Amino acid sequence: MSAMQRSVVLRRRPVGEPTPEDFEIFESVVPAPGPGEVVTRTIWLSIDPYMRGRLWDRPSYAAPVQIGEAMTGETVGEVIASADPAFVPGDVVLGPRGWQSHCVSPAAALTKLNRDAAPLQAFLGVLGMPGTTAYSGMKDIGQVKAGETVVISAASGAVGSVAGQLAKRAGARVVGIAGGPDKCLWVQETLRFDDCVDHHVPNLGQALAAACPNGIDVYFENVGGAVQHAVFPLLNPFGRMIMCGMIAQYNDASPPPGPNLGTVVGKRLRIEGLIVTDKPQRAAEWRDVASPWVKQGSLHYRETVIDGLENAPAALQMVLTGGNFGKMLVRVGSDPV
Amino acid sequence: MSAMQRSVVLRRRPVGEPTPEDFEIFESVVPAPGPGEVVTRTIWLSIDPYMRGRLWDRPSYAAPVQIGEAMTGETVGEVIASADPAFVPGDVVLGPRGWQSHCVSPAAALTKLNRDAAPLQAFLGVLGMPGTTAYSGMKDIGQVKAGETVVISAASGAVGSVAGQLAKRAGARVVGIAGGPDKCLWVQETLRFDDCVDHHVPNLGQALAAACPNGIDVYFENVGGAVQHAVFPLLNPFGRMIMCGMIAQYNDASPPPGPNLGTVVGKRLRIEGLIVTDKPQRAAEWRDVASPWVKQGSLHYRETVIDGLENAPAALQMVLTGGNFGKMLVRVGSDPV
Repeated sequence: MSAMQRSVVLRRRPVGEPTPEDFEIFESVVPAPGPGEVVTRTIWLSIDPYMRGRLWDRPSYAAPVQIGEAMTGETVGEVIASADPAFVPGDVVLGPRGWQSHCVSPAAALTKLNRDAAPLQAFLGVLGMPGTTAYSGMKDIGQVKAGETVVISAASGAVGSVAGQLAKRAGARVVGIAGGPDKCLWVQETLRFDDCVDHHVPNLGQALAAACPNGIDVYFENVGGAVQHAVFPLLNPFGRMIMCGMIAQYNDASPPPGPNLGTVVGKRLRIEGLIVTDKPQRAAEWRDVASPWVKQGSLHYRETVIDGLENAPAALQMVLTGGNFGKMLVRVGSDPV
Repeated sequence: MSAMQRSVVLRRRPVGEPTPEDFEIFESVVPAPGPGEVVTRTIWLSIDPYMRGRLWDRPSYAAPVQIGEAMTGETVGEVIASADPAFVPGDVVLGPRGWQSHCVSPAAALTKLNRDAAPLQAFLGVLGMPGTTAYSGMKDIGQVKAGETVVISAASGAVGSVAGQLAKRAGARVVGIAGGPDKCLWVQETLRFDDCVDHHVPNLGQALAAACPNGIDVYFENVGGAVQHAVFPLLNPFGRMIMCGMIAQYNDASPPPGPNLGTVVGKRLRIEGLIVTDKPQRAAEWRDVASPWVKQGSLHYRETVIDGLENAPAALQMVLTGGNFGKMLVRVGSDPV
């Protein structure tokens, strides 16, 4: 096997917003698989906001990417060689194989996918990590009851769009926050949220209060910053904040102050952080729950696709500035025949 | 019955720190009890930080005290007349009867006390609302495991002293934060906390980090402000913040910003507010658990006593500025013979 493998590696740690110049392409020969290993070619690469965290050299729940190392990321790929009995060439697999055209992985790191269940890239979005995040956030922290008001920031995003649709299924009044009229329209008309507020309005707090006449019982936090400050005073007694992400500050070396926490006492708020991999069972659970909904067309999602592995850095830049619409994907290779 | 009843009523809403001039004494004739009612004379009045919240005219979990109305508060008193079969003169009772020398209450609002279980004022402190708050905070939110590090602010206070002793009983390393060397010494030598940091030190964050070499797993929050900002970065993954009070800001019209909440996600922190009355069963549960400990002398507490109902405003001022040491009490009348 002498095919060439291309990897996007970190060239230097970005200051502020990451740019394509912070990365470079590294080429090498695709190695042969050792015992228990599988070689795949990448078809789809997932681009997610959390990746900004891997570029900081500071303590976090996951180790940072090192200079010269390939960026981490989830992919869907096709097996092209296998030294493990569980996989044969032609199998389509999900795995954390990074920003690479090919990858040698231990078989245990891969999940075989059912090609007929959904378009392959859906396993990186609505049926994958972002969808599972929304599901776990709602199930493990939000615990939404019918009649409650739920606010979702980054409502048209891969996580927010699923979180809000789950809240609608639970019988809640669901209000999205999104950037720009196109996203807000889609959130209301396609996702069927009860309302969606554009975070560019001059007085976000006022607009949100008008959209939430009964206050806010559950807030699914993907954004932070000014959006969080607008939501916080509107939370009702016994309100829950599902702390999933704070994309507005991922490029900040010194993040801005948060809301004063005094009202947490009197309102008995619960503010709780979520990392989807803490409950690994949720991934398969969610695929089982949501695959029929995707097939029926009752769970909606949207994608922004960029072609070519070399454009992964631009895709990350886009996702961190809200330039994407729905799940951000890089098409690295063609679908299997 | 023509005894005179004295009440301390709110004269005007304080700006900043409440002073005695914000209150005045109102005298009236003690009424006779109607059917189902009980008349008591007050022996002990509890003074607690939450009372500052009742002086603001703004939405909260409890209604504000109105101008001209007697201040609310828990008391221990003696029944002097009863029109309810459950009580007879001479009974000693616990109840929310406010800053008053006498009070007519519905019988259902009163709890008969066992005079032999503990000194009567203990039912307002270690065995009462503050002790129950510590117990509920640890049981319902903190869930401390042996070997964890627990930090308690206002560690010598009525709530903090119990919270820390409970954490010690659970096998945790317990670090207090208190104001001044006397309180810190008592917290270490009598309460047997592993360490106690004086919040007046020049670099509280550094002192706290030195006292918590393994980080902080549970923080019992009674203070807010600079203390909260010092604790927050030291919280470990899966850390819990029991949000019980933020006395440092109770006099502020516009509370200062809080910590940026970005790390809540990656560390999966849980920040949760506590109001002790939400789980009413905890009060009797705690009296049963803790009364033997008080009798044995294995649960320590300390009191600051001021004599005379007319000095209740000064006692509140003292508790809000840390001038008290342990549970703040006003002795309104003599113990029953």
